[in-house]
Amino acid sequence: MDDKIQKQRLQKLRDTMRKTNTDLVAVGPGAHMQYLLGFHPHADERPCLLLIALSGEVFLIPSINAQGSRTKTDVAFQIWGDDEGPNTALKNALLSINADEAKNIVLDETMRADFALLLLEYLPKTKHRFTLDTLGAARMLKGEDEIALLKENALIADRAMLAGFEAIKPGMREIEIYEVIKNQFSSEGAPIEFGIVGGGPNGAFPHHQTGERIIQNGDAVVVDIGGRKNGYPSDITRMAIIGTAPDGYEEVHAIVEAAVVAAMQTARPGVRASEVDAAARNVISDAGFGEFFVHRTGHGMGIDIHEHPYITATSETILQSGMVFSIEPGIYLPGRFGIRLEEIVVLRDDGPEVFSQLPRTAYLVNG
Amino acid sequence: MDDKIQKQRLQKLRDTMRKTNTDLVAVGPGAHMQYLLGFHPHADERPCLLLIALSGEVFLIPSINAQGSRTKTDVAFQIWGDDEGPNTALKNALLSINADEAKNIVLDETMRADFALLLLEYLPKTKHRFTLDTLGAARMLKGEDEIALLKENALIADRAMLAGFEAIKPGMREIEIYEVIKNQFSSEGAPIEFGIVGGGPNGAFPHHQTGERIIQNGDAVVVDIGGRKNGYPSDITRMAIIGTAPDGYEEVHAIVEAAVVAAMQTARPGVRASEVDAAARNVISDAGFGEFFVHRTGHGMGIDIHEHPYITATSETILQSGMVFSIEPGIYLPGRFGIRLEEIVVLRDDGPEVFSQLPRTAYLVNG
Repeated sequence: MDDKIQKQRLQKLRDTMRKTNTDLVAVGPGAHMQYLLGFHPHADERPCLLLIALSGEVFLIPSINAQGSRTKTDVAFQIWGDDEGPNTALKNALLSINADEAKNIVLDETMRADFALLLLEYLPKTKHRFTLDTLGAARMLKGEDEIALLKENALIADRAMLAGFEAIKPGMREIEIYEVIKNQFSSEGAPIEFGIVGGGPNGAFPHHQTGERIIQNGDAVVVDIGGRKNGYPSDITRMAIIGTAPDGYEEVHAIVEAAVVAAMQTARPGVRASEVDAAARNVISDAGFGEFFVHRTGHGMGIDIHEHPYITATSETILQSGMVFSIEPGIYLPGRFGIRLEEIVVLRDDGPEVFSQLPRTAYLVNG
Repeated sequence: MDDKIQKQRLQKLRDTMRKTNTDLVAVGPGAHMQYLLGFHPHADERPCLLLIALSGEVFLIPSINAQGSRTKTDVAFQIWGDDEGPNTALKNALLSINADEAKNIVLDETMRADFALLLLEYLPKTKHRFTLDTLGAARMLKGEDEIALLKENALIADRAMLAGFEAIKPGMREIEIYEVIKNQFSSEGAPIEFGIVGGGPNGAFPHHQTGERIIQNGDAVVVDIGGRKNGYPSDITRMAIIGTAPDGYEEVHAIVEAAVVAAMQTARPGVRASEVDAAARNVISDAGFGEFFVHRTGHGMGIDIHEHPYITATSETILQSGMVFSIEPGIYLPGRFGIRLEEIVVLRDDGPEVFSQLPRTAYLVNG
């Protein structure tokens, strides 16, 4: 990563630390670190933490990863070897940035439990929270560079979706459709990250594990896919119908579509995330399907497929221009079918800009 | 997973809990859960914990994953929805197994920090530690079924290593050799998990990120690879020489080989893991290269590529028959080359049985 971007992002983080009276932010080898430094060392059981105080930052790093990481960042290292363990190096790291008596700290919520509890041992009087109002807040507001990458990925996902749809035939197994989608992603240099192909009753499991079930005439098929390119992911859900739609399908599809539209019309800068969730949920509840919309309306997306802001019934987050998130209501009818329609949007001053160019109508396959 | 195996493993875990006076073991959606239940729900930011007390077990599970998981286990569920959050369900879960006043608990060290700290909020007076003497101890002792799978994977890795070696030509990029290895793994139904191809000076970074460097005459090339099949991984490191070996290569290779042999001869049931580390380390130190052996001698391997027992300078673990671990000393000479030789072994009553059938001599490629 460009040195300038690295400095800007650390600066942006420190602004949020000052506003929230935070003494220390501790980050493990994952997406938060990727955002701040443009890389992270190999993540394993060896404690590895980027520690950021107001006055400076330091890297607690296992010696096995030190040399390789040295070529990628100028942050000061406190290196520890397998023979001694991390304790002395951690102590010295905290001292080196005057954080050994930090009172208010923020932990990367995704780091391993043993990393977090090791750090808390050395800061027993501290109050901890997670990244929502510091690093999470900084990451929520995307730069135009990030938005451009997310948009490019969304169009790749559109083509992967179409490739999958064009391949579907009754008699195929879910996993075979997944393979077609995976290959299309690969051919564009965007390895697949996940792919749910849920046919018929399997579509009623929101996190169905794509498997051996054979697609048949009368199936509604949920396809929820994403790949990754240039460090950023994609995520889209669309529906396909094989031959004749199952009983009641059109009605339920129209309700989910109306829920998407209601969420889109509500999402504006200054609005609470929970209001967007309510907009989608009310449409579905008013239509009598409230109990079958079993998840939140959406999630933020950046380096992580799921990150802040979460679009939930209880989220207090105020939406702002530059935030990127999914709008993905669904209705899941056990034993029958499921319907989910998912868009990734970037919030602009006048409302959401949708990345995908695919219609949300069901793709029709000859039965 | 077979119900019988699931019951046996929970039983084995509870035996270790009784011995260590443990009231509660908390496990996130990862390898520990895979070991106990034969599956784990999709892991994301939604708190998901298997809670095991002496008297019973319960699953704190997000509603989005509940239906899909219900088909895979009979453990009682405490389900929570995105609209309410996990707090009430967690409280009820702890009550349901009489663990709301647990005094001594064990946390899955790999779970997310926010999962662990959420649980600790509800058990403020508890003492916590990680899994080394309970679940980790149970997992260290492999069944013959697990050993057979690890052995099968090791032979697949042998063939992937050979495929890579046979493909190497001066002028190729590291990443191209990686691709050959990856394809060989795939062709045997064992997707690659990691692959380090470090040529020339890159070999001196133990965790080198395979890249664009061109393999050239005079390179020593470190190849450290692993795939996964039937839920279990492989891990092996061998060396290739392109044309003429770099100055000093043969001497250093012989020292690393002697360190492997010394560790093998020391590893016996009843011996401390630290003694095996010392055996390898002493050979290298006595030869004057101690400062260039920058990591531990090995790590356990099972469902996780890295798990207990760790073969380190400070490990108090007493080795037992049925443990599977790596022996992988290395010498890394910055700017010149690195050498690592890695075997995976299962410890038997009379010493280590090596899985790989590949010699540890360097593979010679025409320059």
